[in-house]
Amino acid sequence: MTTQPSKNLETFDNPQSGRDYTIRFDVPEFTCLCPKTGQPDFATFQIEYVPAKLCVELKSLKLYMWSFREQGAFHEAITNEILDDIVKAIQPNFIRIRGVFNVRGGIYTTVIVEHKDQNWHAPELVNLP
Amino acid sequence: MTTQPSKNLETFDNPQSGRDYTIRFDVPEFTCLCPKTGQPDFATFQIEYVPAKLCVELKSLKLYMWSFREQGAFHEAITNEILDDIVKAIQPNFIRIRGVFNVRGGIYTTVIVEHKDQNWHAPELVNLP
Amino acid sequence: MTTQPSKNLETFDNPQSGRDYTIRFDVPEFTCLCPKTGQPDFATFQIEYVPAKLCVELKSLKLYMWSFREQGAFHEAITNEILDDIVKAIQPNFIRIRGVFNVRGGIYTTVIVEHKDQNWHAPELVNLP
Amino acid sequence: MTTQPSKNLETFDNPQSGRDYTIRFDVPEFTCLCPKTGQPDFATFQIEYVPAKLCVELKSLKLYMWSFREQGAFHEAITNEILDDIVKAIQPNFIRIRGVFNVRGGIYTTVIVEHKDQNWHAPELVNLP
Amino acid sequence: MTTQPSKNLETFDNPQSGRDYTIRFDVPEFTCLCPKTGQPDFATFQIEYVPAKLCVELKSLKLYMWSFREQGAFHEAITNEILDDIVKAIQPNFIRIRGVFNVRGGIYTTVIVEHKDQNWHAPELVNLP
Amino acid sequence: MTTQPSKNLETFDNPQSGRDYTIRFDVPEFTCLCPKTGQPDFATFQIEYVPAKLCVELKSLKLYMWSFREQGAFHEAITNEILDDIVKAIQPNFIRIRGVFNVRGGIYTTVIVEHKDQNWHAPELVNLP
Amino acid sequence: MTTQPSKNLETFDNPQSGRDYTIRFDVPEFTCLCPKTGQPDFATFQIEYVPAKLCVELKSLKLYMWSFREQGAFHEAITNEILDDIVKAIQPNFIRIRGVFNVRGGIYTTVIVEHKDQNWHAPELVNLP
Amino acid sequence: MTTQPSKNLETFDNPQSGRDYTIRFDVPEFTCLCPKTGQPDFATFQIEYVPAKLCVELKSLKLYMWSFREQGAFHEAITNEILDDIVKAIQPNFIRIRGVFNVRGGIYTTVIVEHKDQNWHAPELVNLP
Amino acid sequence: MTTQPSKNLETFDNPQSGRDYTIRFDVPEFTCLCPKTGQPDFATFQIEYVPAKLCVELKSLKLYMWSFREQGAFHEAITNEILDDIVKAIQPNFIRIRGVFNVRGGIYTTVIVEHKDQNWHAPELVNLP
Amino acid sequence: MTTQPSKNLETFDNPQSGRDYTIRFDVPEFTCLCPKTGQPDFATFQIEYVPAKLCVELKSLKLYMWSFREQGAFHEAITNEILDDIVKAIQPNFIRIRGVFNVRGGIYTTVIVEHKDQNWHAPELVNLP
Repeated sequence: MTTQPSKNLETFDNPQSGRDYTIRFDVPEFTCLCPKTGQPDFATFQIEYVPAKLCVELKSLKLYMWSFREQGAFHEAITNEILDDIVKAIQPNFIRIRGVFNVRGGIYTTVIVEHKDQNWHAPELVNLP
Repeated sequence: MTTQPSKNLETFDNPQSGRDYTIRFDVPEFTCLCPKTGQPDFATFQIEYVPAKLCVELKSLKLYMWSFREQGAFHEAITNEILDDIVKAIQPNFIRIRGVFNVRGGIYTTVIVEHKDQNWHAPELVNLP
Repeated sequence: MTTQPSKNLETFDNPQSGRDYTIRFDVPEFTCLCPKTGQPDFATFQIEYVPAKLCVELKSLKLYMWSFREQGAFHEAITNEILDDIVKAIQPNFIRIRGVFNVRGGIYTTVIVEHKDQNWHAPELVNLP
Repeated sequence: MTTQPSKNLETFDNPQSGRDYTIRFDVPEFTCLCPKTGQPDFATFQIEYVPAKLCVELKSLKLYMWSFREQGAFHEAITNEILDDIVKAIQPNFIRIRGVFNVRGGIYTTVIVEHKDQNWHAPELVNLP
Repeated sequence: MTTQPSKNLETFDNPQSGRDYTIRFDVPEFTCLCPKTGQPDFATFQIEYVPAKLCVELKSLKLYMWSFREQGAFHEAITNEILDDIVKAIQPNFIRIRGVFNVRGGIYTTVIVEHKDQNWHAPELVNLP
Repeated sequence: MTTQPSKNLETFDNPQSGRDYTIRFDVPEFTCLCPKTGQPDFATFQIEYVPAKLCVELKSLKLYMWSFREQGAFHEAITNEILDDIVKAIQPNFIRIRGVFNVRGGIYTTVIVEHKDQNWHAPELVNLP
Repeated sequence: MTTQPSKNLETFDNPQSGRDYTIRFDVPEFTCLCPKTGQPDFATFQIEYVPAKLCVELKSLKLYMWSFREQGAFHEAITNEILDDIVKAIQPNFIRIRGVFNVRGGIYTTVIVEHKDQNWHAPELVNLP
Repeated sequence: MTTQPSKNLETFDNPQSGRDYTIRFDVPEFTCLCPKTGQPDFATFQIEYVPAKLCVELKSLKLYMWSFREQGAFHEAITNEILDDIVKAIQPNFIRIRGVFNVRGGIYTTVIVEHKDQNWHAPELVNLP
Repeated sequence: MTTQPSKNLETFDNPQSGRDYTIRFDVPEFTCLCPKTGQPDFATFQIEYVPAKLCVELKSLKLYMWSFREQGAFHEAITNEILDDIVKAIQPNFIRIRGVFNVRGGIYTTVIVEHKDQNWHAPELVNLP
Repeated sequence: MTTQPSKNLETFDNPQSGRDYTIRFDVPEFTCLCPKTGQPDFATFQIEYVPAKLCVELKSLKLYMWSFREQGAFHEAITNEILDDIVKAIQPNFIRIRGVFNVRGGIYTTVIVEHKDQNWHAPELVNLP
């Protein structure tokens, strides 16, 4: 099995495109480089989205997250970049991404970004007791 | 006691059909097969619903979940399939299903689907402090 | 001290009937019998209510929960029955009951029922940050 | 340092009265007496409020909570009494008090009371993702 | 590396100013002095904001939090002061700060303050199930 | 399936009697009666043993634990009685039983008893780092 | 039910005096007074002992722990005093007491004392894997 | 990638056979069948061993654990069988296996077995404080 | 109340010098300076000792820990220094100190030091099951 | 600040070489490559040692752990290699290393290795109750 890191996100057809539903990925294995010092940064990403016509293929997501391993990246910028890449690949109804970065200088940073298709309306959430 | 896995979901009459209330099942023992590799997948399912005229019988639910043991299934598709089967069997006012799949390739996947009867309106939730 | 299990719920006057407030009981010690097999079932009940004119007396609640010890009861039916009994005894503005039953056949069942007096309106919840 | 339990709640001027904000106290050290048996009861209190012109002084709050040590008190009544005393002392925009009482007879009791100034409107809560 | 505590908060341009998103800092290493006794106080601060044109630079935030080390400060006042300083530096769309102070006299105090730009409207939160 | 509570502990032949090994049962569903007040008591039992020739059959253990449901029993006495019954049934090399009783009068009681066959010597425990 | 705090520890005959076993009490409801300031102190006590001829009666232990409510006591001294009182009452083979005191001045104090009858030898502990 | 369940455990040469050290596998994904009812059982296995000349290859261990999926097995017997198979494959200096089985009939069962090469002596464990 | 940081550890006579027992302090509020960068370091200290003739007075311990606030200190050296100071002040039978330092550079450091009086022999620990 | 990954472990003189004590590092940020697939592996390392004449310098340890980022490495081999490198650099009295690797193929692997100087004898551990 020869696999390489890749910016290319593969997709598959949403098997239930007539229904709004949520897909959530927790990705605890993410590392990039600090653009100031060149030293490794580590983070956990949570990605949750409501698919429209396409879904993200799981293995290609793994290779995509791997592709940042040698890339210098600021916390705020990289979280937005990942959002933009996934939006471009699958044009979801809605997507939210949390980047939870390891402590640096005694401070823990989390960045949360989201994108909503302007033609999509979130159904009212049924809150069961 | 001779029992077999079965796609047949048995039901019983809702003992309090005049009142909206919630029934929640946590099913930590679920396994199916990966349709790509044929290897076992494992998941925990949470099923919560507001019954209309019928309720799901607990033992038949166990046999139903067992029926996926030899079945190849993608995460997104199987969670939708289970929703469809239960909706067909009991036509609930509302139902939500969470499939929490074990980690594969370093990534944890959760799929959440729901169905609301179009004639049913969720009562406004009373939030006690 | 001679005490007996009893279906009789004693009450006392709400000491602050001019104000909506919440009383919550957690009852981890509940056991009844499975109506199919006659074997013991165990559950934890959470009862929360907004009193109107009357409150439930704590010791009589204990004896009331005890009264199910020799009674066969389905999960869905018994949770509704306890709700009905308490509503009848104190006619609260609002009450919600959660029955969290121990695992059977690898599945955990929770039943949540509630009752609202039709003349009572829940005050808008103040959400402090 | 000579200190005594006291029903007198001291106050100080709200240092930022032009802004709605929240002050929260967790008081795990509270004991009073059961009015029926005279035996000790124990509880944890959580007090959260939005100050208007005055704030509760922390040390006098400690002495105030201490003042219940020899006092017989029912759970529902005492939680309302503490609310009334603090409202009288600082007339806050909003206050909520939770009394979480230790288990008695196998049952855990929590009482939650709140008071809102009728001229104050809670700002809409900003829910960040 | 010579660094000094500093009240000067450095900023950088928001890399994605066209999108509302959240940045959250957890700062467990905060200490100041009690203005009454001169003894050390300790707290954890949580800062979360929606940036407008500017973001807070992480290292300067560390030096800023350090600048309180020799400063006497009441809990309520200092939490408001930190809010004011950050608002002045970056004029965010929205910011909320929690100061969680260590126990004193058996009581735990938390102060939560927030600021919203009057021209900014919080987008409706999409609640995924 | 007709089952009844029973003091009769069924056994089966140890499938690996040539090797010292441990079998551990956690039994969270145990209830008996307080011999003073007649009110229900609840406990969790942990049973761990090194079998000799016989093992305890799981279903009969369930029925045996059930047999205490209507029996009055002091904490110390009943834990010893359960030990004696199991020792009599399977004559293990070693057995230890923990009875962890629910809080009564604000105090939690645990009773731990054990029995060692006088001809059996515990092998030295290999402590891996 | 008229009960009073009492220094008198009642006992009952060990129901299984031919076997070394352990009885453990967790007492989370303990309060005394600080001998320097007169202010309340709070602690949790854990008492574990191997009975000889006598056991501590549970209700009298509750009244005994209550008897310290109005008593000034240093942490180290009071833990030793409780040990001495129980040793005098039941002359156990072995007893260990942990007093876990609530935080004062930012420091948490625990005191652990024990007593062994000089004619008693602790059996070698069987460590199951 | 075509893989099949297999009873064949592959091995590789211990890369540091001159040093006693520990390898530990946690295997939360294990399922077999109940030999009485034919219904699925689920368990978590922990395997820890001190290798001699050979180590267990990770992927073949996965296929080996998979091989029990269609096999009927009693808790005590199967844990011993897994031990025997691994001992046969790698003849380790020491090995311990814990099978932690899901609750059945309200009771949780754990079986712990181990094997020590009779020519191997466990080094005295260095306990750091 | 005027208090100052102080290197002077006050003591009091051990109230039970005829008995070996343990006193344990958890000190979560400790800060010093990094000797390389001058920036603040934070740690939690755990101190446990068996007193001989003298005990450490709690309030003076607080002032002593405070005395490091402006002091540059390496992790390994400062933990040894605190041990030496307390040994000098009270000459205990035994003392162990753990310094648990906050993360720096992504690495968490803990230093554990201890001192035993050469004429003191630790009593064999009674391990209750 | 220009820093590079480096296999060179820097040291400093043990500030208290006359006393056996423990230094423990937790390193949650470790990544290398799988030698079979070339894909990233992630692990947490715990390193604990009793220094002799030399200690490991913290920053150089960070650069050393970083040096494995592009290196292919089997779990068992790499944990032994790190042990050997640190032993070579500081020749400690004792050292133990745990490599806790992220799940692969549904199995979690931990490798624990240690080295003891043959002239060093571990002091008997004082076990306080």
